Amino acid sequence: MFVNEREIAVEWGHCDPAGIVFYPNYLAWFDDCTSALFNAAGLPTHILFKAHGIVGVPLVDLKVRFLASSTFNDKLRARSSVVEWKKSSFRIQHQFYKGEVLGVEGVETRVWTGHDPQNPERLKSRPIPAEVIERLSPTR
Amino acid sequence: MFVNEREIAVEWGHCDPAGIVFYPNYLAWFDDCTSALFNAAGLPTHILFKAHGIVGVPLVDLKVRFLASSTFNDKLRARSSVVEWKKSSFRIQHQFYKGEVLGVEGVETRVWTGHDPQNPERLKSRPIPAEVIERLSPTR
Amino acid sequence: MFVNEREIAVEWGHCDPAGIVFYPNYLAWFDDCTSALFNAAGLPTHILFKAHGIVGVPLVDLKVRFLASSTFNDKLRARSSVVEWKKSSFRIQHQFYKGEVLGVEGVETRVWTGHDPQNPERLKSRPIPAEVIERLSPTR
Amino acid sequence: MFVNEREIAVEWGHCDPAGIVFYPNYLAWFDDCTSALFNAAGLPTHILFKAHGIVGVPLVDLKVRFLASSTFNDKLRARSSVVEWKKSSFRIQHQFYKGEVLGVEGVETRVWTGHDPQNPERLKSRPIPAEVIERLSPTR
Repeated sequence: MFVNEREIAVEWGHCDPAGIVFYPNYLAWFDDCTSALFNAAGLPTHILFKAHGIVGVPLVDLKVRFLASSTFNDKLRARSSVVEWKKSSFRIQHQFYKGEVLGVEGVETRVWTGHDPQNPERLKSRPIPAEVIERLSPTR
Repeated sequence: MFVNEREIAVEWGHCDPAGIVFYPNYLAWFDDCTSALFNAAGLPTHILFKAHGIVGVPLVDLKVRFLASSTFNDKLRARSSVVEWKKSSFRIQHQFYKGEVLGVEGVETRVWTGHDPQNPERLKSRPIPAEVIERLSPTR
Repeated sequence: MFVNEREIAVEWGHCDPAGIVFYPNYLAWFDDCTSALFNAAGLPTHILFKAHGIVGVPLVDLKVRFLASSTFNDKLRARSSVVEWKKSSFRIQHQFYKGEVLGVEGVETRVWTGHDPQNPERLKSRPIPAEVIERLSPTR
Repeated sequence: MFVNEREIAVEWGHCDPAGIVFYPNYLAWFDDCTSALFNAAGLPTHILFKAHGIVGVPLVDLKVRFLASSTFNDKLRARSSVVEWKKSSFRIQHQFYKGEVLGVEGVETRVWTGHDPQNPERLKSRPIPAEVIERLSPTR
């Protein structure tokens, strides 16, 4: 399992009148962490998607548990990795720690998506290239 | 089941370089829709929470399916309702339709939360008042 | 002067730990209001820009005064209009009222921008079409 | 002049359908940079404001010039400093560079604000403490 770690700084504007992070911000960070995971594996998405002629990896499913809140000036340690590969979809787990405490944990399901060759106006899932799977699941 | 409906206008700034809604915005709308549901039931949250001496109804769990994307200038019809009551937690379902097409569907689990009387620094779940349940689950 | 009015609902997630609107949200509303102004004049931007072969009307200058704060559940009345036309740039004024009180007032300067015919990689300002000026500055 | 520098990473979700940063995000970064400037001067705002019994330093005026756009994966270098002190207000300049190119430049005017002793419901500007001015304007 290839794991990427990064730090997230909670800013004033991320927090709501209760003084804690407004929850959609965690999901913006999930999305950032997915990009960072691909980057860390040597697959920057803006190059990768063009190279494979796909539109992107849109989200189709999201599951999140919120275990502890965060406030202004907290530093969160994010850990992200692909936890499952299917033919054309994959699941990315994100865990945000505040010190040793797991604050937020979730899984995004995304689909490798291109234009439908029969009808270029429409989108269609495609098989994930072996190279991509390899890079993101090293035994290294 | 008490259902609240509202319209959401997709603005330019809600969309990403792929031209579709950046997904965390859907969750900001979930949060707005939960406030609107309480409002529609005659329970505006800023008054309700003070009246019951609670801190709020923080989110503990989120499950979402993304079925169809939305773009700038789309009008979404949001339908929200409480679909389950437990002693101190409850589940709110949100469905966003674009015309007749279900685009996004999700469930927030939230907890009725106050200060711990033993230790006011800490938070503790509390039983949801019968009146609140009644107002949000009318057979009316 | 062609003026467009719309209502803005301040949501929980727009507010910061001080309980007031986090100021960048006002600017997101400025951008929304500019789109709405063009729409109201019968010039929806996504059609207009394509029709004239331009990329858009990117912002080059912003001036804002913040006179009164807003909080969760406030309804703001936004008034927007083009207050000055130059050859290829124009200035849009936005005023946000809370009841009779002017809360925020600002001016965006935007430029009618297309690809440079000499070098399509680059952008270049272009003269604003007379029809656009006319529609947005009616004596009607 | 005490200058603080920091890096800003442009993420996918910061960008709009034109592929460039949606401009209100620059203002969220202005706000983050103001907090960071105080932090760097040894005056973390959440401690500073409590220690001086003030509510905060709300924005009253904003002027920004947008000179060059930024896109996904850009790294911006932000430079922030207080450029003017008045009795109870001060002006903070923020400059965002992309390599050697100045992309965005702006000035926030903020006011040192507490509760009005005559009427605690209301807010009132207060003289900025000498210590704060000193820390943020070193000849060091």
